[in-house]
This record gives sequence, C-alpha cells and structure tokens, in this order.
Amino acid sequence: MLNEEILSGDLRVATAGIDLIEDALATQGVNVAATKWQPPMSVELASTLSTIALSEPVRAANREALARLTSARPHLVGILPASEAVRLEKGSFLHAGPPIEWENASGPLRGALIGAALLEGLADSAQDAGARFERGEFRLEPCHHRGAVGPMAGVVSPSMPMSVIEDEVGGGRAYCTINEGLGKVLRYGAFADEVLERLRWIERVLAPVLDEVLRGGEPIDLYAMAGEALQMGDECHNRNRAGTSLLLRAIGPSLIESRRPASDVAACFRFITGNDHFFLNLMMPAAKVAADSARNIDGSTMVVAMARNGTEFGIQLSGTGDEWFTGPSGVPQGLLFPGYGPEDANPDIGDSTITETVGVGGFAMAAAPAIVKFVGGTSDLALDSSRRMYDITLGEHPLFRLPALDFRGTPVGIDAALVVRHNTLPVVNTGIAGREAGVGQVGAGLVDPPARCFEDALRHFATRNEALLSV
Amino acid sequence: MLNEEILSGDLRVATAGIDLIEDALATQGVNVAATKWQPPMSVELASTLSTIALSEPVRAANREALARLTSARPHLVGILPASEAVRLEKGSFLHAGPPIEWENASGPLRGALIGAALLEGLADSAQDAGARFERGEFRLEPCHHRGAVGPMAGVVSPSMPMSVIEDEVGGGRAYCTINEGLGKVLRYGAFADEVLERLRWIERVLAPVLDEVLRGGEPIDLYAMAGEALQMGDECHNRNRAGTSLLLRAIGPSLIESRRPASDVAACFRFITGNDHFFLNLMMPAAKVAADSARNIDGSTMVVAMARNGTEFGIQLSGTGDEWFTGPSGVPQGLLFPGYGPEDANPDIGDSTITETVGVGGFAMAAAPAIVKFVGGTSDLALDSSRRMYDITLGEHPLFRLPALDFRGTPVGIDAALVVRHNTLPVVNTGIAGREAGVGQVGAGLVDPPARCFEDALRHFATRNEALLSV
Repeated sequence: MLNEEILSGDLRVATAGIDLIEDALATQGVNVAATKWQPPMSVELASTLSTIALSEPVRAANREALARLTSARPHLVGILPASEAVRLEKGSFLHAGPPIEWENASGPLRGALIGAALLEGLADSAQDAGARFERGEFRLEPCHHRGAVGPMAGVVSPSMPMSVIEDEVGGGRAYCTINEGLGKVLRYGAFADEVLERLRWIERVLAPVLDEVLRGGEPIDLYAMAGEALQMGDECHNRNRAGTSLLLRAIGPSLIESRRPASDVAACFRFITGNDHFFLNLMMPAAKVAADSARNIDGSTMVVAMARNGTEFGIQLSGTGDEWFTGPSGVPQGLLFPGYGPEDANPDIGDSTITETVGVGGFAMAAAPAIVKFVGGTSDLALDSSRRMYDITLGEHPLFRLPALDFRGTPVGIDAALVVRHNTLPVVNTGIAGREAGVGQVGAGLVDPPARCFEDALRHFATRNEALLSV
Repeated sequence: MLNEEILSGDLRVATAGIDLIEDALATQGVNVAATKWQPPMSVELASTLSTIALSEPVRAANREALARLTSARPHLVGILPASEAVRLEKGSFLHAGPPIEWENASGPLRGALIGAALLEGLADSAQDAGARFERGEFRLEPCHHRGAVGPMAGVVSPSMPMSVIEDEVGGGRAYCTINEGLGKVLRYGAFADEVLERLRWIERVLAPVLDEVLRGGEPIDLYAMAGEALQMGDECHNRNRAGTSLLLRAIGPSLIESRRPASDVAACFRFITGNDHFFLNLMMPAAKVAADSARNIDGSTMVVAMARNGTEFGIQLSGTGDEWFTGPSGVPQGLLFPGYGPEDANPDIGDSTITETVGVGGFAMAAAPAIVKFVGGTSDLALDSSRRMYDITLGEHPLFRLPALDFRGTPVGIDAALVVRHNTLPVVNTGIAGREAGVGQVGAGLVDPPARCFEDALRHFATRNEALLSV
C-alpha cells in the first residue's frame, strides 16, 4: 500500500510548477520541496532565453547596469522653467510614455495638451487648441527624450517650472514638473480655468519660493528621504505621505527665514502639506536620473524605462539604446471614485512607472499595505507583490529596505529575460484617469504591462547582439 | 500499529498548552487543533479569577471602562508653566511612577531632581541640592497625582512649560513637559549646564512660540495624528518620527506667519525636526487624559495607569481608586550604546507606559518593525508582540489600526484578571537610563512588568468587591 511505503521509507519529493501534487503529498505528511516554475511567456523565445541565460557577457553587462542603477544618489538642487531645464521651445510640448501623435492620443493626454496650449497663450479656446494640434501646428515629444518624466499625461510646456535633480555619483540631471495636487488637475487631463489658475500660481509664487530655499541650502538627498519614507509606510509611487512630510521637515526652517511675504510662503507650505503626492514629482525625476545612469550598456537586458502615453505602454532596455518596445496600455483594475464606472477609465498612462524601474512603487508594496485597499486585498497581497518581483530582478536595493520583509532590500533592476522566462510581469500600481478630456482622476488600481513589450525587446536584443550571444 | 490507525480513521486531535504533542502529531500528518493555554500566574488566585470571569457586574464595568478609554479624543490646546498647569508650588517636584521618597530614588531620578532644583534656583550646587533633598526640604509627588505624566525620571518643577491636552469628549485635561531631545537631558538624570541651558531656552523661546501657534489655531487632534502615525511606522512610544512629522506639518504655516523673530521661530522648527521623539511628550498626556476618563468605575478590573519610578513599577485599576499596586522595576534588556554594559543600566523608569495602557507602544509594535532592531529580533517578533496582547485586553482600538494585521484595531484595555489568567504580562518597550545620576541614556530595550502588581491588584479588587462578587 502506497501510504505504508511512503511512511516506512525516508521519502522526499521535489515538485515543480503547479501546486496540486505538492499539496496532495503535504497532506499525507510527505516531505515536499516545491520549486516555483511556470512555462515561459513565449515558447518561441525559449532558445533565445537559454542563450542569454548562459552568456557571461550578458551577465557582466547586467551587473554593471545594476551597479550604476543602485549607486546613483539623486539630489534636488533647484527649480527652473522648462524652457531652460529641458530647452523646450514655444509650440513644443512634452508628454508621458513612448512617442505618440495627436491622432492616437487618448482623452486625458489631449485634455492636458489643450490646457498647456491655453496656458502658453497659443490658442483662444479649448476648441481652437484642439484644432491646432489636429492640424499639426505643434510638436509633441516624450518627456523621456529630454531627460524628464511626467506623471499621468505628463504634459510639459515651456513656461512650466520643473524641479532639477542631480545625481551626485554619475553627474546626470533629470527634471519634472511640480505636483499640482488632487482633483481637477492638468496631469489627469483637466483644463478648466481653476486648473490653469493653479498652474500660474505655481509658476508665480511656489516655484520662486522653492528655488530660493533650495539654492540657499544643501542639495536635498532624495534617495535618503525615500529610504526613510519606505520605513514609514510609503512605497514612493502611490503613497507619498511620509516623503512629503520629510521634505517639509527639511525645508521648513528655510521657509520660515525666507524674505518673501509670509503670506505667500505660508501658502506654499499649506499647498505642499495639503497634497500628500507632492513628493512623487521629486521621486520620479530622482528615479529617472538613476535609470539614465544605467543606459547604453552593451549586452544588458535590464529595463531602464517603462512608460505609458495612455494608448501604449513602452519599455527601453539598457542594451538596446533609444529603441522603444510597445504594446497596448491595459486599463487599471481597482477602486473607482463614486459616480464612475469601468467604462470611464482611460488605459494606463504616465511616466510614474519609472519608480518601479528603480525598485520602489509596486516593487515596494510590502512597505505600504495601505495601498492594497485600492484593490480590496489584504496585507499579504502587499507582501506577495514585492516577493514575486525578486524573480524578475537582478538584485536588491542597498538604500531601499522593506521593514515587513526583515529589512531586505527592494527587488531592483528588472531583467526583460527574467520577465519572459518566469512569465511574471512587473507589478504596477497607478492612478486612473478619466477617458474623456477634461474629466480628471476617476480612481486608482493595479495594471499589468503588456507581455509583448518584453518579448519584442528580447527579440530585438538577440538580433542586435547575435555576435555577442554566439560566442 | 499506531500510525496505521491514525491514518485509516479520520482522527482529529485538540491539544492545550505546551506544543510538544501538537508538534509531534502534526509531523505525522494528524489534523491538530491547538488551543493556547498556560497555567495562571498564581494558583492561589484561581478561584478569584473564576468568580471575576463569571461576574456580569464586572463585565459591565469593564465594558464601560473600555468604552470611555477608547472614545476619548485628546487635543493639544496650549502651553502653560507647571505652576499654572498643575498648580505646582515652589519647592515641590513631580516625578514619574508611583510615590517614592529621595532615600529610595535611583540615580537618574536623583539626577533629574538635582537638575530641577538648580533650574529653580533652590540650591547652589548639585551637592547642595542633594543635601536639601536628603534633609527633606522639598516635596515629591507623582505626576499621575496631578493629572500629568513624565517620560523617564519625569521630573517637573514649577517653571517648566507643560503642554495642555484636553479631551473633547470627556472634558478632562492632562499635562506633560516638552521633550528635550536626545543625549544629555534631564529626563535621563543629566543635570550639566548644557541641560539646564536647554531647559531655559525651552521656557524662554520654544514655549511662547508654540503657545502662540496653538492658541491662534484649531486644537490639534492628537489621536487622529497618532492613528495616522501608526500607518507610518510609529508605535507612538519609542518611535515617533511620523507623529513628529505630522505635528510639524500641522503647525508649519502658523510658524511661518508668527510675528516673533524669524530666527527664533526657525530655531524652534529646527529643534523639533531634530528630535523624532518630540511627539512622545504629546502622546503621553493624550493617553493620560484618555486613561483618566476611564477611572473610578466600580467593579472594573481594567488598568488605567502603569508607571515606573526607577525603583518600583506600579499599576492602578479603574475599580480600585487611587491605590497603587507595585513591584520591583525590572532592568530592560536590549541594545546598549557603545561604552556601556548591563551593569550601567538603571531599572525601568518613566510614565511612558501610559502609551501601552491605551493600546499603543509595545501593543502596537506590529506597526513598527524597526523597533525590534533594539533586541535583534525579526519583524515577526513585532507582529507576535501585538498579537499576544489581544489575550489580555478587553477590545480593539477604533482609531489605532495595524496595517500589517490587515488594519485590525490595536489591543486595548488591559484587564488585570486576563493578565493573571493567561500569565501574560503587558509588552513594554522603553529607553534605558544610566544607573548613575548625571549619565543620561545608555540604551533602549524591552522589559517585563512585575507579575506581583497584577496579582496584588486582583487580591485588593476581590476584597473590596466581596459583596459584588458574591451576588
């Protein structure tokens, strides 16, 4: 009888893949060592995957890419208008995600572009602005192509103030607009008068105050702050309450001693403290400058950008230059605000996935169980999301640690080859924009990147590196 | 053969107490339901415990006590000198813990008393001050007897500024001195010139600035802040970084608009932001006013105070009036600063265990895995500490929630009868003071209260309530 044989001998069983057999044996008291295994995303890529896995040059390139990615130390040094920061010309607009033209742009991106054109005085009305974009009178370009990142629609026009982030290790710079707060805001595609009024106040009052404070003091070590924020319930993408608090603690004394009118300075403090996402627009360019420091390493399969324009999700690898690999943006699943249904949600949009690219955001969800309230999950979902990401990353971040996982470093350095081999997509948590131009935010949730980006990136990588891989 | 019998039938086993049998059966694949059980602390109290457990009047009294404890809403309303706040007369000093006289006082308490006497100009030198205390020239009284609480030595003298906390539900008030920061500070028994200088600056500059800000604005809802801080890695006793951050966010705009010299106001901001424990001295009186609202409920076995004077640990129950039940203070086990050994550590001291009394501190350790670094534990120790406390508490706090336990309310309302029945002592995490007067802090760690306090309290309770329990 089988039971007797199992119990009389010292049987040990190793299982791989689905847990049916593992569970059945375990209930019978058998010593089971379960190995995690899933069939790869694409069978056709199987031989490419094994070639890559066995290639020492690829491993060395990825070690170098990971080392650069994780040794960057981004600091906030000042505020500049986009016309200076990224040399943006009148009539040019930056946007989130991979390249896109007006005709393919989704509602929130169109809304934000209309708002920015009105802000710059390039159109008389929303209709006029739309017509001018339609006629191709203005130029569109991804933020990523100018060393910048933008949350949600990510639209930047020349007059907008941008934070200036400098990597003290690699010397690079990155830029991002200033967070506008919640509700009706440009980044979610709203362009009503109140939206433009707030942008003008940011330009007129907040930016000069912040710039004075920053240039008068030591550069602010954003990664040190993010590391602390992870000990305080933030994951630095959709929860930034601690980061925002730590920033205010750092600049508080200089704000008090500012020579500008106290009512203006107090209004700046109130604006920042009224908006727990303020830190996101600093974390994003901090992540961008770190990721950029790991670009263009021949033979590396590490992801250096993930970004969405509301229509397509795109990625870039360190070893494939400026090439974008794209697939259709998914619609995030999560919690919609009252009055909105799933049909109101726009496909995934924004450059904020740069946070996941550097090992925070969805990858650090174990630090922020409050985030799983979005999707009605438990705190275990938060832990599991982080844990799964170790399968597809090259290492652990030395500065970003997860208290709930005994201070293990966050999973960092997404390897496109590991993503395809394990058939495990990066976890992304995100805000949800309304589908129509002008609506604004309608919710928040989780979304899967399209598998195709990673498969295409690997195919391209294999072709480009044929010589290297055949050695 | 036993194995065959077990496997052929559908055997289920329930075990109680030690896990030896449970483990042995589980390894054989048997379905075991393990029940937690420990012999009670005191066998002699067994019949008292069953009488109390069966008493409906006791249950009703405890429900009332818990309801009051958890419905308090303490607000910070202003700053007053101790002479006004608690009507402290010249020559009188408050101290932490149950009543004690100079001859039994430990080093840090003596050091703090000497410092306070010097601060008040009541002695020419430390030696002179000591001699005067020795001769009984000054009066000592517990903070708790004046509606106040004090961290560590907890010494208060008439000129010291105290925060004024008001319970918006019950209307009560409680008071505490302002946190002095780390290093050489009075509360750890240091009395060097720099210590007294800092106390004078607090009185001259910080207190008036804070009072102006507080009286000019809305009262600050400290429990709302503590509830948020628990979502941000604080447990509100030994980790207060988030609480301190949220306080600075709340008062920042008023500080900026203060009419006092900007250099003074900026110095206040720098002082607070340089000291992550600043919030503790607000959380403690908030807890005190909540605990006081649950005092004097006939028939209640709920703990309303736990406090240590450096020699004795004492508790008070709601149903036993102002009686203290004491036992010798233990020496905390944990991390000592470089240069100090276990022989340098003073026995447990301070009123800060009022935080555990209201369901935070050690009871909320699941919110703050960083705390277990004290004792070299893992994040599981933090979770387990909170989980165990549900066994000895009457309920869960509606405002204080633990993200890592799926937002379950913290265990709150320590029942002395449950402590003795389950032989489980409240978890206390604490700073460690140097044994010698004048040394200051030497470490931080965990400590057990003496079981005797809880047993004595129950005996007294049973005698006092003989009529009630015999019905």
